Amino acid sequence: MKDGIITFSRLPKITSYYSVVGSKEHNGPLGDYFDEWCEGDKFGKDSWEKAESEMQRRALAGALRKGNLVSDSLDVILAGDLLNQCVGSTYGLADFNVPYLGLYGACSTCAESILLASCLYGGGLASLCGAVTSSHYCSSERQFRFPLEYGGQRTPTAQWTTTGSGAFIIGGEGKVSIKNAMVGRIVNKGISDINNMGAAMAPAVIDTLTRYFSESTHSPEDFDLIITGDLGYEGSEIIKDLLLGKGIDIRKNHVDCGLMIFNRDTQDVHAGGSGCGCSAVVMASSIVPNLERGVIKNVLFLGTGALMSPMTLSQGESIPAVAHLVHLSSN
Amino acid sequence: MKDGIITFSRLPKITSYYSVVGSKEHNGPLGDYFDEWCEGDKFGKDSWEKAESEMQRRALAGALRKGNLVSDSLDVILAGDLLNQCVGSTYGLADFNVPYLGLYGACSTCAESILLASCLYGGGLASLCGAVTSSHYCSSERQFRFPLEYGGQRTPTAQWTTTGSGAFIIGGEGKVSIKNAMVGRIVNKGISDINNMGAAMAPAVIDTLTRYFSESTHSPEDFDLIITGDLGYEGSEIIKDLLLGKGIDIRKNHVDCGLMIFNRDTQDVHAGGSGCGCSAVVMASSIVPNLERGVIKNVLFLGTGALMSPMTLSQGESIPAVAHLVHLSSN
Repeated sequence: MKDGIITFSRLPKITSYYSVVGSKEHNGPLGDYFDEWCEGDKFGKDSWEKAESEMQRRALAGALRKGNLVSDSLDVILAGDLLNQCVGSTYGLADFNVPYLGLYGACSTCAESILLASCLYGGGLASLCGAVTSSHYCSSERQFRFPLEYGGQRTPTAQWTTTGSGAFIIGGEGKVSIKNAMVGRIVNKGISDINNMGAAMAPAVIDTLTRYFSESTHSPEDFDLIITGDLGYEGSEIIKDLLLGKGIDIRKNHVDCGLMIFNRDTQDVHAGGSGCGCSAVVMASSIVPNLERGVIKNVLFLGTGALMSPMTLSQGESIPAVAHLVHLSSN
Repeated sequence: MKDGIITFSRLPKITSYYSVVGSKEHNGPLGDYFDEWCEGDKFGKDSWEKAESEMQRRALAGALRKGNLVSDSLDVILAGDLLNQCVGSTYGLADFNVPYLGLYGACSTCAESILLASCLYGGGLASLCGAVTSSHYCSSERQFRFPLEYGGQRTPTAQWTTTGSGAFIIGGEGKVSIKNAMVGRIVNKGISDINNMGAAMAPAVIDTLTRYFSESTHSPEDFDLIITGDLGYEGSEIIKDLLLGKGIDIRKNHVDCGLMIFNRDTQDVHAGGSGCGCSAVVMASSIVPNLERGVIKNVLFLGTGALMSPMTLSQGESIPAVAHLVHLSSN
């Protein structure tokens, strides 16, 4: 690591990937690109939490199948989700019988898992790693906000937690490589509105991007896309404005997973999508395939996470956030 | 990674370490060895959760101070705790302004953080990493069991969550090295009693130790200590018995952090201590210093975690567990 930028002595590649989503995501603009979806979001289970675990199981099983791999070939799985004690991952992935490292980075966990899997491969510590994340609208709402039955109103800046799970397999084979990466710092600028995560997470993106462009030889125009996951409308506007004030113009190539996954005009999602699963399924359905095909060549992916809990907010704390960066490139 | 055992192209070392505990831990058998303790366990804060964050802050600040290091010299911090969304770590470590990776491995998180920090150093990806974990009896009780005010009875197999935080700094300098490591697999043998974590975690230790002795050239007698954190009395008896049935005799050199930190005869802790903070402070106060002095030469440290949540248990699931292994050696 030099000035915060992690480079690899051998280049990690995305060997396989797979996405699993719920009905609302299937009905959104990217609906046709997901590998698998389920009407009613229950995935054959009798609780939302079990449904979330089942999505993770299907996502990793799908990625293995698509890559003609067996689970025994994985040295390690890195995984996480939004549920207390990350139980979406532990119950979903136990049956693969693969060494398991649990992560928690809120909605940044997809980027965190790809980053750490790349480190384990890139540092010669593992040959093949799984990186799996998920979120489920129904399990998240009752844990972080209100049970669905309550019918709580949403504010205009609220985001809609994506029901989805994405799995990536990182190893030496593949058409998309992870060129370098940067671990985010915790940034807390005093936002305490649990319904405005975009504003809480925007400063973390600004911190990471500013450091990245200052320490690397890259500038924004080197990238076809600078994709955040997930700031929604509110946070996306904030970072474009504030970065411009610092002389970094990302207006032409910035997109946000939370703005891509749903149609804000017709799907009643307010500021856009969110959740660990959001960036995972957008990357696995739309970004990585386009890198594979060479339609786009270089992508900066910033996973953004709001690291509070309902309890810390009720104790009067504001929301700390983090943004991990991964530079993806078509070979 | 060969057959699950991670070796390092450059040898990671424990550059510095520090332990912070509460009053009950200070009054226990290891009381004199902790670096810092606080009467009343509040650490100057007005909630148990904030007290836990403050312990993490003091632990990392202490480790930096003891090692004559500044926080800017850290490339990354790996941290976690037992609280929902791991807020003990995020709020405790934000002010260091160091790139941050959040982990969740329940009580295995101390071993997980040392393992991953060793990978980042050992794979040439970082020069200096922090590994910080904590738990607090009062924040854990109200989250996982009952609010303290309720005065709930404890069963004989229940463990007492340690109030403590341990920080380790992993880099190229130090008298204790991390020779190799093994990531645990998730094992779920059907135990669903939240008051018998030892029994739930024992099978994960057996899985990891069996794989380690089968794939490495080592046998149990190569180690001065095989230390688990934290099985308590119940789990410790189980692993010794069942491993003996597999021809692996660890009766002479097995100890458990949960049995070391409290005096079970006088401190009313039932089956012993537990919590992310337990193994962290036992390792930082007693094991690593003895390795530094050469009093002991080789230690196998197995961090054990029970990966359920109160919600999964109420939904009828049993408890999945994991045990990560780190081989520590005096140079």
